[in-house]
Amino acid sequence: MFQFTITANTSGKNAGASNNRARTGIFSTPHGDLLTPVFAPVGTQATVKTLTPEHLKGINATLVLSNTYHLYLRPGDELVRDMGGLHKFMQWPRPMLTDSGGFQVFSLAQTRKIDDDGVTFKSHIDGSTHRFTPEKSIAIQENLGADIIMAFDECSDPNDHAYTKLAMDRTHRWAERCVKAKTRDDQALFGIIQGGVNPDLRAESAKFIASLDTPGIAIGGLSVGETKQEMHEMLDVMYPYFPENKPRYLMGVGTPEDLINGVLRGVDIFDCVLPTRLARHHSAFSPEGRLNMMNAVFARDEHPIDETCDCYTCQTFTRAYIRHLIVAKELLAGTLLSIHNLRALIRLMEQIRGYIAEGTFEEHAPALLERWSNNAERKKLTQSREDVERI
Amino acid sequence: MFQFTITANTSGKNAGASNNRARTGIFSTPHGDLLTPVFAPVGTQATVKTLTPEHLKGINATLVLSNTYHLYLRPGDELVRDMGGLHKFMQWPRPMLTDSGGFQVFSLAQTRKIDDDGVTFKSHIDGSTHRFTPEKSIAIQENLGADIIMAFDECSDPNDHAYTKLAMDRTHRWAERCVKAKTRDDQALFGIIQGGVNPDLRAESAKFIASLDTPGIAIGGLSVGETKQEMHEMLDVMYPYFPENKPRYLMGVGTPEDLINGVLRGVDIFDCVLPTRLARHHSAFSPEGRLNMMNAVFARDEHPIDETCDCYTCQTFTRAYIRHLIVAKELLAGTLLSIHNLRALIRLMEQIRGYIAEGTFEEHAPALLERWSNNAERKKLTQSREDVERI
Repeated sequence: MFQFTITANTSGKNAGASNNRARTGIFSTPHGDLLTPVFAPVGTQATVKTLTPEHLKGINATLVLSNTYHLYLRPGDELVRDMGGLHKFMQWPRPMLTDSGGFQVFSLAQTRKIDDDGVTFKSHIDGSTHRFTPEKSIAIQENLGADIIMAFDECSDPNDHAYTKLAMDRTHRWAERCVKAKTRDDQALFGIIQGGVNPDLRAESAKFIASLDTPGIAIGGLSVGETKQEMHEMLDVMYPYFPENKPRYLMGVGTPEDLINGVLRGVDIFDCVLPTRLARHHSAFSPEGRLNMMNAVFARDEHPIDETCDCYTCQTFTRAYIRHLIVAKELLAGTLLSIHNLRALIRLMEQIRGYIAEGTFEEHAPALLERWSNNAERKKLTQSREDVERI
Repeated sequence: MFQFTITANTSGKNAGASNNRARTGIFSTPHGDLLTPVFAPVGTQATVKTLTPEHLKGINATLVLSNTYHLYLRPGDELVRDMGGLHKFMQWPRPMLTDSGGFQVFSLAQTRKIDDDGVTFKSHIDGSTHRFTPEKSIAIQENLGADIIMAFDECSDPNDHAYTKLAMDRTHRWAERCVKAKTRDDQALFGIIQGGVNPDLRAESAKFIASLDTPGIAIGGLSVGETKQEMHEMLDVMYPYFPENKPRYLMGVGTPEDLINGVLRGVDIFDCVLPTRLARHHSAFSPEGRLNMMNAVFARDEHPIDETCDCYTCQTFTRAYIRHLIVAKELLAGTLLSIHNLRALIRLMEQIRGYIAEGTFEEHAPALLERWSNNAERKKLTQSREDVERI
């Protein structure tokens, strides 16, 4: 279990260069094999928002992430355990991953007090007081029962070197405690590298986390406000310390370009709320750039969102219909856009795996990046007055 | 086209008695055959709220209703026509029905001024002024392109005899104008009987509408506040005037009991927003009565909503999971409950058709009515303080 088999490596004269570290692999879990590189849809509260498990199977999702902080608060990890675990509770038969709750405690909880042993915080739902320690995070994640679980970490302000060092050291101690606390052998615990945007700390953290010999390595604290260049630089700094034979998971990333750039730099696993969050804001990935589907230019557009897309939404509905649903405030719009946006990233990863397998990813990467470059932000369209007022 | 073939009639010594007028039939339309009695889900704005057409096929929905008033205002009937008509726009390949817009003009529009020629009203969306006449309603419905369309009618306060008589007479003149205005021969226009809860007016209206010889007969102005007894009495009064060989459509009805009682009294077609509206309010049909799925008693309930139900929701998820989705404010709850509630009524109609075919409906009706009697209103459950606060 949790064997990681590399099935294709980029090679040739540029092998190992910063734009040529991509590989495909198979990570075996108790709920099936993950083909990497893989993009994981986020199902924060034991549901990928507005989608059924059938929809997720239909877009070929494999790994689904769920959030420890949210499930601990509601419905409670013990309830999930008693209902047979997360897979059975939400009826997702394929691999699952839970985060440690660390990121949400620092970003969502109302107040928090951190010490070397753990964090005391107030729930963002009802203000009640709770405490997470490394041992508690592991106990919760063992109750939830995902295939891949995360060490409890502190994600600090990336620009404060002194504090980032302190938080990183604490994260390392906590990672050791998590390894020790873990009791289930059907779950793979990944240690998390921190260190902000400081090359020295990132190198130190990567080296330390690699030394723990966990079945995979997670990269935390990126995509939290730093520049793309900083993110790439950090990936380059950490790269020499990544164990070759273990999957690398870049947490909370990201945009289509981030996925392409991440794979080029040796990342195997990604997750992000972006596709479903964009869907709730009427935005769709497309070859023309990110589209605001509420725009009046789509009112009579009989094309699908993306002519090249194989998802249910694009195979079935016109842009005109989707715009109508949005304007009429019909919830089906969110479902259809979520299906499309998730499928777009999953399909991108399938395409990338194909290129890596045939040894052409480095060659295709510039065109892929160009193709997806307009999807970082909403495409500017000629807007009617009506739209300007509505948005 | 629009042939109605009766495939089974109740017979025996009670044939034609008020509790024994049920029949099964096949109503052929350009988009396929309808097996009657049939319950039609409501897709007001060209979507059955929160469901994809695949979901609807999965629960064996055949006829879907959409609302002329809403589609005229948004996205506009001419847009729907230019996009290939309602079937293509919303991708529903099976039969569709549109109402005339009359009921919504009288119940939803902000203000309205009625005269013998038509109604001028202000949109509930933006206050803009519009005018419907019988000819306009038919023109809109021809643009939308449903298989079954309705004559424009006035639904008045059922308890004001003098005004109800006036509105009924106007409805009759309008029905004649609708028959004359109609140009498409691939749509079946149904005249609508009015007359409130006045036996004399109902008889007069049924006689008149039957005389128009439309391919089907609709019964309007019921389920608008009158008692069950009044509804049954009106159905009995109209019955002698119903043409035997044409489908009878009881508009906007209803609860499971209303469906059973309606079929017993010779009704073939029903529609109602109840199943999807209940779903949005966390309510589920069940053999135990109508359940409030947010209730804390379901927090750890590993059973499906209804052990006997064959829908995706009941075949896949526990009550505990559905309650979690509701408490966590996840939209998937509405989707899953809509699937179940619609399937419950469609399955009830399948069951009734089976009983009629084997000649046992009269015999089974009391048990069916008993079985569904608790679904008229929300079941009282032992509620925890938490639930009382939350509801």
